[in-house]
Amino acid sequence: MPQPMLAKYRQRVELELSRRLAERSGIDPSLHQAMHYSLMNGGKRLRPTLVYLACELLGGKLEQADSAACALECVHSYSLVHDDLPAMDNDELRRGQPTCHIQFDEATAILAGDALLTWAFELLSEPVESLSATIQLQTIHTLSRCSGDLGMIDGQAFDLGSEGKTLSLEQLKSMHAAKTGELIRASLRLGALVSGCATDSDLEALDHYAQSIGLAFQIQDDILDIESTTEQLGKPQGSDAERGKATYPALIGLAQSKSWLNELHQEAVKALEPFGSRNSSLIELADFVIARNH
Amino acid sequence: MPQPMLAKYRQRVELELSRRLAERSGIDPSLHQAMHYSLMNGGKRLRPTLVYLACELLGGKLEQADSAACALECVHSYSLVHDDLPAMDNDELRRGQPTCHIQFDEATAILAGDALLTWAFELLSEPVESLSATIQLQTIHTLSRCSGDLGMIDGQAFDLGSEGKTLSLEQLKSMHAAKTGELIRASLRLGALVSGCATDSDLEALDHYAQSIGLAFQIQDDILDIESTTEQLGKPQGSDAERGKATYPALIGLAQSKSWLNELHQEAVKALEPFGSRNSSLIELADFVIARNH
Repeated sequence: MPQPMLAKYRQRVELELSRRLAERSGIDPSLHQAMHYSLMNGGKRLRPTLVYLACELLGGKLEQADSAACALECVHSYSLVHDDLPAMDNDELRRGQPTCHIQFDEATAILAGDALLTWAFELLSEPVESLSATIQLQTIHTLSRCSGDLGMIDGQAFDLGSEGKTLSLEQLKSMHAAKTGELIRASLRLGALVSGCATDSDLEALDHYAQSIGLAFQIQDDILDIESTTEQLGKPQGSDAERGKATYPALIGLAQSKSWLNELHQEAVKALEPFGSRNSSLIELADFVIARNH
Repeated sequence: MPQPMLAKYRQRVELELSRRLAERSGIDPSLHQAMHYSLMNGGKRLRPTLVYLACELLGGKLEQADSAACALECVHSYSLVHDDLPAMDNDELRRGQPTCHIQFDEATAILAGDALLTWAFELLSEPVESLSATIQLQTIHTLSRCSGDLGMIDGQAFDLGSEGKTLSLEQLKSMHAAKTGELIRASLRLGALVSGCATDSDLEALDHYAQSIGLAFQIQDDILDIESTTEQLGKPQGSDAERGKATYPALIGLAQSKSWLNELHQEAVKALEPFGSRNSSLIELADFVIARNH
């Protein structure tokens, strides 16, 4: 995906997030700062971009997707803040910056994460005229299932429980499908839902696309950990291998990981066929996922 | 409130929670056990009981209130699990049992809390025939605002930030209004909303009742910490004083705290006047709040 196109959605969601966050400045200052710090951290904004692209794909306007885009980034940010905690992955650096519990303290990081998660559901339930209550309810139900104990949290629990164990390829795939795949799926579904025009077959096609790019994203992450530099990554290069973390290159080799990445790219493109020529942006996004260097 | 009446709602919500939790047994076993352990811990179920009573007050049936009752208990349980963490209040015992991070580990406790919070919103967004999507959306919006950074989490952040500081009576009241009061208010509002018959003035009257019993609950907590036994409390008696925690008896004395408690009881009863004779159950609940010994 050409940088300017990606930048458009990134800038839009960042503006929305910071505008909405500014309205909450009356709360406890540390909590507010920690929420701001965790959200405004130079992330790629992949999930909000997927929300916007899926909404546009089905003919919706960007403003219909703003709340959902913000909600997805809130859930993603909260998950990073909690995952970085000492009791979890114990990471001190994220995108080259101190993680939330290092910049503030552990208690504040736990609360900021809780607040971002809760805010996501507030954003989705805000009364709006442009959407039916039924559709808003569907977005909340989808996001809660994909990010909760049936989705993302289950993946994180499995990941923690498998430390030091050797995972099979099937187990690694299924862990990633829950830990990162479900939120990517939710992003596309929410974007489609808020367009107001999503059919069941649209949602299924987007699920297939999500599965392919979700897995591709993870494989590319593992490849970057080997081939990229610490500077590009914003975290120590080679840290996965050092921790003995299960990765695709470790399980099936670097060459086969790369060829799988290309297959997944093709599958993602194929999943978009039913949408005809309107699908070009999501194809570009798939290009970006496998070509990115950080 | 006579014990059998309280028991009826407690048993109902416990049955609902355990039935719904059993349907999620396919997830990571530690995560599932930690969610179960945190929910099924012999709590008073005050918040679900308020949901049921407010629903009945306005002529709704109990089955209309089941999801909201479960959701409130999920949010309450998650807040206890996270508050007990070493980085927060560092409590090892709750209701005479090891806290979640002691029974399992810190990472599991963080995830179980996250999962319970997320589940609350899944429960409220489940498609149901008995309620309009608009009302369901209102329950989600109310719960997210009352439990998030504008409500409960703000109170907890203020509490953490005021450790070792001397609070004024106004500050203590306002901290409690956010930390525990907002969730009690949400319980009554959600119960009223799911009845399908709540007017704005019903909701306002219930807000006043909530403010009175919320503060009364907190004052009685402080009194119990002085006058009750470790066995009755399920945690060490006198632990507030030992920690130098700000309490009402410490600020205004025990006698004045008790007389304030009685005033708040009268205010709670007065707030219910608009509901006529239907209000007897909520009056009994107010009786229970100030007469309870644990």
